[in-house]
Amino acid sequence: MRFLLREIRHNPLLWLLAFVPVVFVVAKVWPASHTLLFLLSVLAIVPLAALLSRATESVASKTGDAVGGLLNATLGNLTELVIALAALRAGEYMLVKASIAGAIVTNTLFMLGASFLLGGLKHHMQEFNRVSARMQAGLLFLATIALLVPSAVSGADATAGSAFTQKLSVGLAVLLIAAYALGMLFSLKTHRELFGSESHGEEGEEPWPIKMALGTLAGVTILVALVSEIFVESVQEAAVVFGMTQAFVGFIVVALVGGAAEMASAFSGARKNRLDLSVGIALGSASQIALFVAPVLVLLSYVLGPAPMDLQFWPGAVVMMLIAALTASLVTNSGRSAWFVGVLVLMVYFIFAMTLYLLPPGERQGSNINATTEKASR
Amino acid sequence: MRFLLREIRHNPLLWLLAFVPVVFVVAKVWPASHTLLFLLSVLAIVPLAALLSRATESVASKTGDAVGGLLNATLGNLTELVIALAALRAGEYMLVKASIAGAIVTNTLFMLGASFLLGGLKHHMQEFNRVSARMQAGLLFLATIALLVPSAVSGADATAGSAFTQKLSVGLAVLLIAAYALGMLFSLKTHRELFGSESHGEEGEEPWPIKMALGTLAGVTILVALVSEIFVESVQEAAVVFGMTQAFVGFIVVALVGGAAEMASAFSGARKNRLDLSVGIALGSASQIALFVAPVLVLLSYVLGPAPMDLQFWPGAVVMMLIAALTASLVTNSGRSAWFVGVLVLMVYFIFAMTLYLLPPGERQGSNINATTEKASR
Amino acid sequence: MRFLLREIRHNPLLWLLAFVPVVFVVAKVWPASHTLLFLLSVLAIVPLAALLSRATESVASKTGDAVGGLLNATLGNLTELVIALAALRAGEYMLVKASIAGAIVTNTLFMLGASFLLGGLKHHMQEFNRVSARMQAGLLFLATIALLVPSAVSGADATAGSAFTQKLSVGLAVLLIAAYALGMLFSLKTHRELFGSESHGEEGEEPWPIKMALGTLAGVTILVALVSEIFVESVQEAAVVFGMTQAFVGFIVVALVGGAAEMASAFSGARKNRLDLSVGIALGSASQIALFVAPVLVLLSYVLGPAPMDLQFWPGAVVMMLIAALTASLVTNSGRSAWFVGVLVLMVYFIFAMTLYLLPPGERQGSNINATTEKASR
Repeated sequence: MRFLLREIRHNPLLWLLAFVPVVFVVAKVWPASHTLLFLLSVLAIVPLAALLSRATESVASKTGDAVGGLLNATLGNLTELVIALAALRAGEYMLVKASIAGAIVTNTLFMLGASFLLGGLKHHMQEFNRVSARMQAGLLFLATIALLVPSAVSGADATAGSAFTQKLSVGLAVLLIAAYALGMLFSLKTHRELFGSESHGEEGEEPWPIKMALGTLAGVTILVALVSEIFVESVQEAAVVFGMTQAFVGFIVVALVGGAAEMASAFSGARKNRLDLSVGIALGSASQIALFVAPVLVLLSYVLGPAPMDLQFWPGAVVMMLIAALTASLVTNSGRSAWFVGVLVLMVYFIFAMTLYLLPPGERQGSNINATTEKASR
Repeated sequence: MRFLLREIRHNPLLWLLAFVPVVFVVAKVWPASHTLLFLLSVLAIVPLAALLSRATESVASKTGDAVGGLLNATLGNLTELVIALAALRAGEYMLVKASIAGAIVTNTLFMLGASFLLGGLKHHMQEFNRVSARMQAGLLFLATIALLVPSAVSGADATAGSAFTQKLSVGLAVLLIAAYALGMLFSLKTHRELFGSESHGEEGEEPWPIKMALGTLAGVTILVALVSEIFVESVQEAAVVFGMTQAFVGFIVVALVGGAAEMASAFSGARKNRLDLSVGIALGSASQIALFVAPVLVLLSYVLGPAPMDLQFWPGAVVMMLIAALTASLVTNSGRSAWFVGVLVLMVYFIFAMTLYLLPPGERQGSNINATTEKASR
Repeated sequence: MRFLLREIRHNPLLWLLAFVPVVFVVAKVWPASHTLLFLLSVLAIVPLAALLSRATESVASKTGDAVGGLLNATLGNLTELVIALAALRAGEYMLVKASIAGAIVTNTLFMLGASFLLGGLKHHMQEFNRVSARMQAGLLFLATIALLVPSAVSGADATAGSAFTQKLSVGLAVLLIAAYALGMLFSLKTHRELFGSESHGEEGEEPWPIKMALGTLAGVTILVALVSEIFVESVQEAAVVFGMTQAFVGFIVVALVGGAAEMASAFSGARKNRLDLSVGIALGSASQIALFVAPVLVLLSYVLGPAPMDLQFWPGAVVMMLIAALTASLVTNSGRSAWFVGVLVLMVYFIFAMTLYLLPPGERQGSNINATTEKASR
């Protein structure tokens, strides 16, 4: 507890923890005030995610930047996983898929681009380990192929939810998890020496003791799960109030909320000229969601959801993920970065965000999403 | 005037200036002889564009190759801008879009490919500054994403000209211009040192005095504008006579005519082993059209055109621009070139040209184009 | 004959030659037992392809690895060409196209990926000549553009077999063959020095005398042609028995059978740390099929087939070829390889194979294929 208080003094973001009890009270007393609950749950998730992230950093502090980044991304995505699980149990498959695709795109483009930009504004030219970046980009590319091929090969009009799509989704999920596991074996075991850091800046903050870190991890995860349920229930209604399309909420809002804490770490790494850390968090997180969180959700949907969930995304989401993976591939290829690279990557993200924001809700893509939602509630 | 005469003696292309008065006379006397007017206006635009280009080179002569190339491309595209403005005022939005897409593809593939080939036939292996090439290819890639995403995300059948498309087009236009401006800031100011030249050959021609150069720039631009109006009026009818599809005329013929002068500079640079100059002109010109000319035309259509123009291109054009950007990215990645690289790039261009030439006019894509044209004349 | 016997003692695969007479006898006696004939013809083609390959290696043994790889690929594809010719003469255009696309994808992904994996399991990190790999990947990329553009530009629903598609296909075929010929000129003549080997391992087997090699080449080619006819006749019926879709048979089974011998060479090269040889065989073979075998088949269809064959593939096949070319481009870019690169490439292949295996036969893509088949039998 003393640790916690000292943390709060250091990190003003943690003052937001005060909203955690507030959101539970409001959910009990005024369960129908969706807009208020939406705002409160966002304000409560952000500091919880930051705590999770801080606890993870403590565990990762003894390893190199690349490995630390991977560990960071693995546990930092707990927030996304828990939010998605809440949506899965509610049968909101459209929200699950939108938040998966959005998290991949947001981590790849916004987190990476903003890291390059923020780092580049302070440092003229930054270097990072491109072996590590290449591997993550390669994994990401593989995952987007796994999501693209089924719909491309079977024709765009394949009836979603057919036996073909279901069987294929399970097979792809197993393949993706296998690729992810082999990637860990490669980067942590057989070719570990390739993933060392290129450049070192000053040291980070003092790590927590391991017991304290693991305890925080467990307790905060449960809190995130509880707040996420309120968030998932309120987000749709709140979107209508704010005049945002469902696609925009799932892709942009949920992804930014879920990734807020990791972004804080990535941006701080970039400012300290530890770009390896930033690239590791951004791409590691994206590829982990694509190759681990998404397939696990598909497999879990057989146990937890009202109906099996497949891996078939709407074409627009697949195009965005593919472009994100390709962009990451192109910009990390040289292992060097300056501020304009960040601008380019962010611009791609802004194009996506603007398109989704302006998208009329009654369009063809909307009806696809509805079809998917209906399927879940069969 | 003395300068002009000396120029004409040096550059046989300028003899074609004699067609400038001829085209005006014919347009006055026989306004209905479209085929003749088409040929005459082509013959008149080429030397005018060459003069514009020569004047620009004079201004650019004191800077490095990469910066000179950028300047060259900026003002060299005056011809394209003026032609497109003439078509815009006539409400020929299909021609505007085809000429934009065509100019991007022609500069990226034909000008770059032929430079590599012509340079490679003389020099065994050529090097160029790949930082500069990479940035231009990155900008081009960004622009094609901006053109691709709206139609991919909203579904291919989104009704063109809807409120969604209009709002999105204006937003994208602003984003693209911002990215272009930041790119200039980057390459000309904050990271100028990266854009120096790799290799130097012999010196170019003697530059004009600055006053003379600026005067020529102003006067010739007005002449190009006047001839362009005649060109735009006659090109459609002439296409029918020559048995060419509208798509082929807009993509290939207009782009080759508008870019003739820049091509002369790029090819001459390649022969003199100043491949930095060639790559700078080709990719700089393409990215300038995509990120500056096209968005400016969208914004100007609110003032000058009969109806707002959007940024939605027909899918075939988007695919060609995307492939062109990807090809440029792949071939400039190594910073080295030999003749076969030029062959590969030219082959891609020939595939496009042949497809457009053979395309039956009554096909589905034709009706799309017509729909766009009709929209403008609402 | 003594040579042949010694070969058989060295290479256990050649024991399968015993099936060559068996398949002819069974085809004579029980012409309707398709499943048996399918299995027997597969078992007979594999050792014949190995003999062809061995004879080619003997010819190539005096040249460098890259040139040897090219030669190897050129003649190694005799098997594929002969099988495709048998299908062409039978009017089975769907099978011809599926086997072309499948051979490209299988060589690019399975052969390359398995070489990387097998080599990487023995050697920690392997290097190869990336100039050569880049050129092959560039040629492959060009070929996929040639296959992609016509359908993208004319709209996906362009009626296959129209005059437009026919004329375009002939034009593209000529362009592709020209690009292939110029590529040979480049790599074997003008820029030969770039294509030398990077690394050498132990020496290969003792080469055959040239006379013996050429004699084997001629005789075995005739045998392959005869067995291929039986294979083509039986493969469709056998597919039904084994519960495989037609697309899976054409793409995966035929490609693996046709390429078995080259794979043996490529894998053995990778184990001996001669990765130049493996990459040369895999990508050289893929680009040769795309730029030489496929166009030649189009041109030959005017002479040998019941109707002209075009170059229009079903969209799923084009997507797979495009992804294969892009993957090859990305992974060979660095000129270095470790086992995980092989895993990534193989995973892409497994995604394709699984999708094709699970594809329901009655789907939309199936009807496309039938439309193509019907066209041939008009």
